[in-house]
Amino acid sequence: MRSLSECTVTVVGLGLMGGSLAGALQGRCGQVIGVDRDEHTLTRALARRFVDQATADLEAGVREADIVVLATPVRSIIRLVGQVGEWMQPGSLLMDLGSTKGLILAAMAQLPAHVQPLGGHPMCGKEISGYEAAERELFDGRTFILSPLARTSDKALALGKALVERVGAQPLVIDGRRQDYLVGTISHLPYLLACSLVSTADATTSADPLVWQIVAGGYRDTSRVAGSDVTMMVDILMTNREEVVKAARICGEQLADLADLVARGDEDTLREKLVYIRNTRKEHYR
Amino acid sequence: MRSLSECTVTVVGLGLMGGSLAGALQGRCGQVIGVDRDEHTLTRALARRFVDQATADLEAGVREADIVVLATPVRSIIRLVGQVGEWMQPGSLLMDLGSTKGLILAAMAQLPAHVQPLGGHPMCGKEISGYEAAERELFDGRTFILSPLARTSDKALALGKALVERVGAQPLVIDGRRQDYLVGTISHLPYLLACSLVSTADATTSADPLVWQIVAGGYRDTSRVAGSDVTMMVDILMTNREEVVKAARICGEQLADLADLVARGDEDTLREKLVYIRNTRKEHYR
Repeated sequence: MRSLSECTVTVVGLGLMGGSLAGALQGRCGQVIGVDRDEHTLTRALARRFVDQATADLEAGVREADIVVLATPVRSIIRLVGQVGEWMQPGSLLMDLGSTKGLILAAMAQLPAHVQPLGGHPMCGKEISGYEAAERELFDGRTFILSPLARTSDKALALGKALVERVGAQPLVIDGRRQDYLVGTISHLPYLLACSLVSTADATTSADPLVWQIVAGGYRDTSRVAGSDVTMMVDILMTNREEVVKAARICGEQLADLADLVARGDEDTLREKLVYIRNTRKEHYR
Repeated sequence: MRSLSECTVTVVGLGLMGGSLAGALQGRCGQVIGVDRDEHTLTRALARRFVDQATADLEAGVREADIVVLATPVRSIIRLVGQVGEWMQPGSLLMDLGSTKGLILAAMAQLPAHVQPLGGHPMCGKEISGYEAAERELFDGRTFILSPLARTSDKALALGKALVERVGAQPLVIDGRRQDYLVGTISHLPYLLACSLVSTADATTSADPLVWQIVAGGYRDTSRVAGSDVTMMVDILMTNREEVVKAARICGEQLADLADLVARGDEDTLREKLVYIRNTRKEHYR
C-alpha cells in the first residue's frame, strides 16, 4: 500500500461531505478525482480546485484510485459498494462517509478479497447540503469515526487514519454496531425531535399570524436540524430503525414524565429533575 | 405622564434581562435606577454605567420612578406587583419582563387605581443568566410583546411602546391569553424537548465513554435551552401549566407518529411528512 502522499483518492458524490473531503485532500495527497452525476458540480469543483480531475464516469474514476471514498446517501453507498469492488485495484482501500454503519459494513463484508474495506463517519453535519455548501475546513477538529471490519488489515486502517488526520479531523475507532447505537440517540433522535417540534407548531400555533413574529432562539435552535436534507435523513433512519425507534420511545417517555410533573404541579420533583438535567448537559459542554 | 426622555426608570432585578434593559436605557431616558438584592451586582452595574443609581432598597427605588420594570422570575414578579403598587407615584407605569402573562396580568388588575399596568415580554432569551451576561444590545431588532389590561390607558401603552423602541426592540401588542398559548409551543415546549433529549442520552448512551467524543451539532443545538436557569423555567412552567402540558402531549404524539413510520418501514409516508416539515420550517426562516 502506498503512503497517502502518493495516493490517488477518488471521492464519489461531491455533496457537502464529499465535496468538502475532496477540497480538504486536494494538494495534500497524490491527486484527487471527483465523481458526480451532475456536470455543473464537476465543473465548479474543478474551477475551485477542490479536485484535480472530475468525471461523471464512475468506473473510470474508481479504476485509477488507491483510495475510493463513497460520499452519497447511505443506501446509495450500499448499492455502490456492490458495484465498485470489481473495478478497484488490488490492495486498494474502500471507505465511506455514511451516518449509519450496520448495513454498509454488511455490504463491505461481501467485497472481493483484493479490496480493503473501512467504514467512516465524520461528525460534522450541517442542515444545508449540496456542493455549494462544501468547504475545505469542514472537518477541522471534528471527530471522524472509523469502523473497521474483521478483514480490514492494520495497514488499511492506518491509511484511513492518515486520511482523516490529513483533513484535520481526529480518528476514533468504534465498532459499527456501537456507533449505530450511539448516533441513534445523539444524532438521529435530535432530528426527530426537531421535526416533532415543527410539526406541533404547524398543527397548533402556526394558525396565528403573530407566532412567527415572536419566535425566538429556543424554537430556532431546537428545530434547526429539521432543515436537514430529507433524502439523506430517510436513508439514515431506514438503515438504523431499531436504534432510532428505541431512542424515540425512551425520549417520548421522558417528555411525558416532565409534562406529568407540570400537570400535577409536583414542583419539587420537577425542579430536582431540571437541575439534574441542566448539570448533566453542562458537564458535556464545559 | 412625562415623555420617556424625562422619566426615571427603575428596573427591579438586574439579571440578564433586567440588567440588559437598564444598560440599554441608561443615557436614553431621564435616569435609570437599578434595584437588586445582590450588592456585588449593584456595584458592577454602577461601574459599567448600566444604571445611574443603584440600591438594594426596593421601596426607595420604586418611589422615585415614573416607570417601574419588574425583571425577576415570574412568581417573584407576581409577589412584587402586590407590593410596589402603594409606593408608586400617581400616574406612573408598572411593567414587567415575565415570560408568561396570565397570572401577572391578574395580579396587575388588582393594583391601586393610580398606577398604570402593562405586561411585557421581550423575545430574547439566552441559556445563560445573571447580570454578567447582560448586554446593552440584547433587545436589538427583537420582538417585545406588550400585553395591556382593559384599564391600561392609551398614554401608558404609548409610553411602554416608546421604552421598547428606545432599547432597539419592536413592540407587538398581544392579549395575555394569546401570548401564553403561543409561547407555550414556541418557547416552553422547546425547553421540555431539550430536557427530554439530555435525559434520554443520560439514561442510555451516556454510559458509553465515547459518546461525548462523537456528539455533533445536532445534539448540541437541540439540547441548548436545557441549560436555561432552572428557577426561571420552573416559574414559567408552573404559571403556564395548561398550555405547556397541551403542547407537550401533542408533540409526544408527533414524535410517536414519526417513530411508528420508521418502525413500520412506511418510507413513502415518512418522506412525505419530513419534506412537509422541512418546507414548513424553511418558510419561517427564509
